[in-house]
Amino acid sequence: MVAPALLPELWTEILVPICAVIGIAFSLFQWYVVSRVKLTSDLGASSSGGANNGKNGYGDYLIEEEEGVNDQSVVAKCAEIQTAISEGATSFLFTEYKYVGVFMIFFAAVIFVFLGSVEGFSTDNKPCTYDTTRTCKPALATAAFSTIAFVLGAVTSVLSGFLGMKIATYANARTTLEARKGVGKAFIVAFRSGAVMGFLLAASGLLVLYITINVFKIYYGDDWEGLFEAITGYGLGGSSMALFGRVGGGIYTKAADVGADLVGKIERNIPEDDPRNPAVIADNVGDNVGDIAGMGSDLFGSYAEASCAALVVASISSFGINHDFTAMCYPLLISSMGILVCLITTLFATDFFEIKFVKEIEPALKNQLIISTVIMTVGIAIVSWVGLPTSFTIFNFGTQKVVKNWQLFLCVCVGLWAGLIIGFVTEYYTSNAYSPVQDVADSCRTGAATNVIFGLALGYKSVIIPIFAIAISIFVSFSFAAMYGVAVAALGMLSTIATGLAIDAYGPISDNAGGIAEMAGMSHRIRERTDALDAAGNTTAAIGKGFAIGSAALVSLALFGAFVSRAGIHTVDVLTPKVIIGLLVGAMLPYWFSAMTMKSVGSAALKMVEEVRRQFNTIPGLMEGTAKPDYATCVKISTDASIKEMIPPGCLVMLTPLIVGFFFGVETLSGVLAGSLVSGVQIAISASNTGGAWDNAKKYIEAGVSEHAKSLGPKGSEPHKAAVIGDTIGDPLKDTSGPSLNILIKLMAVESLVFAPFFATHGGILFKYF
Amino acid sequence: MVAPALLPELWTEILVPICAVIGIAFSLFQWYVVSRVKLTSDLGASSSGGANNGKNGYGDYLIEEEEGVNDQSVVAKCAEIQTAISEGATSFLFTEYKYVGVFMIFFAAVIFVFLGSVEGFSTDNKPCTYDTTRTCKPALATAAFSTIAFVLGAVTSVLSGFLGMKIATYANARTTLEARKGVGKAFIVAFRSGAVMGFLLAASGLLVLYITINVFKIYYGDDWEGLFEAITGYGLGGSSMALFGRVGGGIYTKAADVGADLVGKIERNIPEDDPRNPAVIADNVGDNVGDIAGMGSDLFGSYAEASCAALVVASISSFGINHDFTAMCYPLLISSMGILVCLITTLFATDFFEIKFVKEIEPALKNQLIISTVIMTVGIAIVSWVGLPTSFTIFNFGTQKVVKNWQLFLCVCVGLWAGLIIGFVTEYYTSNAYSPVQDVADSCRTGAATNVIFGLALGYKSVIIPIFAIAISIFVSFSFAAMYGVAVAALGMLSTIATGLAIDAYGPISDNAGGIAEMAGMSHRIRERTDALDAAGNTTAAIGKGFAIGSAALVSLALFGAFVSRAGIHTVDVLTPKVIIGLLVGAMLPYWFSAMTMKSVGSAALKMVEEVRRQFNTIPGLMEGTAKPDYATCVKISTDASIKEMIPPGCLVMLTPLIVGFFFGVETLSGVLAGSLVSGVQIAISASNTGGAWDNAKKYIEAGVSEHAKSLGPKGSEPHKAAVIGDTIGDPLKDTSGPSLNILIKLMAVESLVFAPFFATHGGILFKYF
Repeated sequence: MVAPALLPELWTEILVPICAVIGIAFSLFQWYVVSRVKLTSDLGASSSGGANNGKNGYGDYLIEEEEGVNDQSVVAKCAEIQTAISEGATSFLFTEYKYVGVFMIFFAAVIFVFLGSVEGFSTDNKPCTYDTTRTCKPALATAAFSTIAFVLGAVTSVLSGFLGMKIATYANARTTLEARKGVGKAFIVAFRSGAVMGFLLAASGLLVLYITINVFKIYYGDDWEGLFEAITGYGLGGSSMALFGRVGGGIYTKAADVGADLVGKIERNIPEDDPRNPAVIADNVGDNVGDIAGMGSDLFGSYAEASCAALVVASISSFGINHDFTAMCYPLLISSMGILVCLITTLFATDFFEIKFVKEIEPALKNQLIISTVIMTVGIAIVSWVGLPTSFTIFNFGTQKVVKNWQLFLCVCVGLWAGLIIGFVTEYYTSNAYSPVQDVADSCRTGAATNVIFGLALGYKSVIIPIFAIAISIFVSFSFAAMYGVAVAALGMLSTIATGLAIDAYGPISDNAGGIAEMAGMSHRIRERTDALDAAGNTTAAIGKGFAIGSAALVSLALFGAFVSRAGIHTVDVLTPKVIIGLLVGAMLPYWFSAMTMKSVGSAALKMVEEVRRQFNTIPGLMEGTAKPDYATCVKISTDASIKEMIPPGCLVMLTPLIVGFFFGVETLSGVLAGSLVSGVQIAISASNTGGAWDNAKKYIEAGVSEHAKSLGPKGSEPHKAAVIGDTIGDPLKDTSGPSLNILIKLMAVESLVFAPFFATHGGILFKYF
Repeated sequence: MVAPALLPELWTEILVPICAVIGIAFSLFQWYVVSRVKLTSDLGASSSGGANNGKNGYGDYLIEEEEGVNDQSVVAKCAEIQTAISEGATSFLFTEYKYVGVFMIFFAAVIFVFLGSVEGFSTDNKPCTYDTTRTCKPALATAAFSTIAFVLGAVTSVLSGFLGMKIATYANARTTLEARKGVGKAFIVAFRSGAVMGFLLAASGLLVLYITINVFKIYYGDDWEGLFEAITGYGLGGSSMALFGRVGGGIYTKAADVGADLVGKIERNIPEDDPRNPAVIADNVGDNVGDIAGMGSDLFGSYAEASCAALVVASISSFGINHDFTAMCYPLLISSMGILVCLITTLFATDFFEIKFVKEIEPALKNQLIISTVIMTVGIAIVSWVGLPTSFTIFNFGTQKVVKNWQLFLCVCVGLWAGLIIGFVTEYYTSNAYSPVQDVADSCRTGAATNVIFGLALGYKSVIIPIFAIAISIFVSFSFAAMYGVAVAALGMLSTIATGLAIDAYGPISDNAGGIAEMAGMSHRIRERTDALDAAGNTTAAIGKGFAIGSAALVSLALFGAFVSRAGIHTVDVLTPKVIIGLLVGAMLPYWFSAMTMKSVGSAALKMVEEVRRQFNTIPGLMEGTAKPDYATCVKISTDASIKEMIPPGCLVMLTPLIVGFFFGVETLSGVLAGSLVSGVQIAISASNTGGAWDNAKKYIEAGVSEHAKSLGPKGSEPHKAAVIGDTIGDPLKDTSGPSLNILIKLMAVESLVFAPFFATHGGILFKYF
């Protein structure tokens, strides 16, 4: 019997929810601060009426006032556009949720029936799988509780995504208005709004998981094996909502974007976000539903899955066997610490320093990553010291492996720091401050073809270091603590999720702010400021994606390990026909999936193109700006197309594990999971970096800040046209097919994990009968 | 003790070399037939002098005569262009061979030293690895003989590639001249020339392997284990030359092609193959060194490797243990039968039927595949019946597995038929007769961006069925006869290699013929005929590539199995850190490699662009056609660039197994091999099909045969411009990076196999000391 963790159980029971509540409170506080920027004409009234010195009480001239534009009408226009965007996003999400609701009910039934059938819906207690001397709850109970956990995970994910989207559409116009006062003020509004999303998601995810565990414990009592098996449903719920968020949102955003660009920029030669373009509102809605709600649900899914994978492995390790609740909650303690660390980190961006110049934006965002990683390292050390016994055993595919607490500390750290490395490498390959993107921009001299060739090569190359970083994390964590190590490494990478999400959500908010500025006809100088915010956002978006992919890889491996443990197989030998064909077919799935999502974007975009062309051709005065386009029809086209186009890729992801597991059995399914993992992570990284690089190569030429960039520009030059083509190709790669692969690899793994007992009992019927 | 095969040993000893000699004789005969088309002005003289009816003795008017062009000058011009192409190709190959020579000497030394060190260069006999009661030859002997086999494999590959290139450059102008007499005549010349290459390569590969085995046997006597271990060097030799052929040739051909197109077609608006373009000769040279010599050495490598993998596994199975020479030679018997079957098949194209119309070309080529597959199925049945005992045992990672002869028959068949399926699927996705390419062409309406998005999606989608075909082949053959089954399945796919190569070489020959027609200023109608030949060649080239990739996948798996057997490991468990990181990093290597090769093509093409631009700008009268461009400088630029750019990807392939094996050991190396296999095959298929589809989408618009196609054209329209961009992007994908991945996965596997004893003894030093 090993000594329990230093931290008493009662303290754990108190500390975890307190941290979660602090996170939620902080999030609400940020929301309150953002809401103080008024979107009614009060501000205009008070500034022109109250402060007679014309300085609006901020000590800074408002640009619009300087230039004599009517302030009130601008504010009203911003408010109007924001309402349109917000309504479009809400309408899309509600349409999506209708389908999600049907899916959830159906899939909940599948879970219950499949898992219930494992022991023929018997309500008798049974001997435990790993410790046969004890009695565990019946499989039917696990089926029921898994189903409940699934629904809870799904609802939490949906709520977080919805609220994130709400705050984002609430903040975009406010960012635009603040941009009148200076780039620093606008930055803070955008960043605070991102933080609302980040903290809300991280804290509510933790809180719901914590409450669920405690409620389930009332029924399960000492049967922790069954308890944490049931909890895996939470991960599946979170992750299956991410499928809708990422894939549906991804198709939406890019159908609108590509459609708007193809007609607007290329055919009609009007700038991006021009209010005359009928698809412009749909495009801005897309940023919110794809990049905010989609990204949020993706990372929430990763977080929930990593926690579940760690918990299920821990439940059959010494933590579970000895009923050491504090040690059992180690993953939750890490996340709790993460919330506190991110809170401090956020203050560095919003309160401790103030941004005054454009060139300070990108470093400020990067510093967020560095600061949170450094502080978190200390945080992990503390948690590992108080939350773990000095020595314990971890389940390792049939045997128990002795692990020291400092080893587990290293496992979490290696994941955390690997995330930072992936972030920086992604930045290097996608920011136009470095040579890779500049080379791609340079290749536009010889046309679009060389731009595409160089861009693809860049994406392929950008895979190398992240893969080594992930491989090293896996090697260290796997060697120290088997699959538990991999799961906590994933949690390490995700422990700073609140900051990561804040940075990530900042991008689309700034992008929207720029769009609103353009549409409201605000001055050129304001647009320059929002463009600068947006350019920084592009790079951080790529970092966020790299981060999401890296964590997805670790999470999937941890889930895969948990699945294998739960399915009762001890080796997955490549030298068997069942496994090698699984590996080969699994490695093919990301291609199949990408083909579907890219084709979906293409088809949806073509529909959008037709509508936009139709409006330009049939609405008199549209090009001259005297008539208003019909934004709502474009929003509806995007919504309908994305919902419809989401079904085939969704089915591929959801059905593959069920079909493979049922017909071919757990060995082949193991091969499929491993194959899709090792292949999918590469395509995901390369696709999202290629797209990011093309986007920033275009921005590099447009901004024209260096001699080199000037020689390629200006807007409308041949190299710029080539760059625009690259950017358009990159859109579905970086925002739809690339990030959606995260979902593919994670969701198949967590689904396999949840259904593992079913496959182990009833699976592989093809091999049984032939 | 099982009964030996029906066929007596003496018969086997006689039949194999006889078939090889028949193949070589047939090849020489085809060469003779092609050579009867005269490239001197005799033909012109005799036609205008001898046959007074002006019909040239063929009953057909020569088009040039009809149109009153001076026949003699056209023939002389063709001969001149042919000489320039042939000289360019020869000069490239000789430059390449200089480097190859240095590499060969160096690498032969590495093989000798590494393998010799396994037992510290001891000259004492040792107990055999698998049957320890017997005495085998020392490791030093295996080192020496492996080195000799390596050199023999390399020299055979080099010679085959060189001779293939010679006949291709010999045949191109002859095809052009025959096109004057009709499309059927031109087709037969091109196809016969392809057959020369196909049969020469298949037969000489078999003959050299056969002789090597028999010569080595004199020393090894009854130690077949050592004998066939040494023979693996032959596969390594063949495959490492393929590295130079495929990668170097691939960079050469696309640097020239892309360079020529970027300036010629896009900037200067002159047609393809226009003699004013300074890079035009380099472009035509490229077709020969890349698509002919490169493809030849690639397939030769596959053939040699598959044979070696089968032999080395057989040597430790009952064939080897019982010294049943006929059964041992089963792989060679299959190849011998393949030569006879392909010979009959060829007659269907050249003698039994005559092509009269353009639309008959593609079916004729497709029928070749079907006929050879059907006849070969019977051939395999015969060989399996006479060449195998009815029951025998196969080594299966530490155990012996009982196999029936009909099971092995099925293993070979499943490979053969999978090849056909892959061929047809590839055709469906790359021929412009079907909807996928037509959809891609249609997407050109909205510009280059949608063309690229749809093309990439098409490539991804085209992976699905081939992967299932490969997976089923692997499953069947692996289940029946372990790795031996996989190896003979690969041989089954490659058994019709002579026909496959003939079809494949036909493409670049027709392409060149078209180029020569254009450059010689021949009439529009001749160009139409050569274009029709070329369009069919494009599709068959894609089929050939699909075929090469499919066989590479099977071959690599067989080599991987042989490596694992020889390295003495019995499981490759994904659930160990060493293997999973190998798998992840291995899956990344194809991306790294592709990034290198694509960047190489890009850089080399940019150099070419500069030179072509320089010539257009500095040579007065070039655009007007009054001055001749400096072709030689362009040839030299392509040559130098490709040799230089080949080094980094070459090092990646050659060094990875050595570094991984030496530092991380055989388990991690197994993971790397499996990872690169399952990931590489997907990228290879998708890249080559995407490229083929873009090429044919462009040709579809240009040809304008349907209403739909006409609505997209003509040449110079916006959709056509978008299609040209896609085609240019596809060039490096389909001709450099895609096919080069075959080499990556095969060469790493065969290198690991050859060095397996070294890694097993001295490898994994990092894990030994840390």
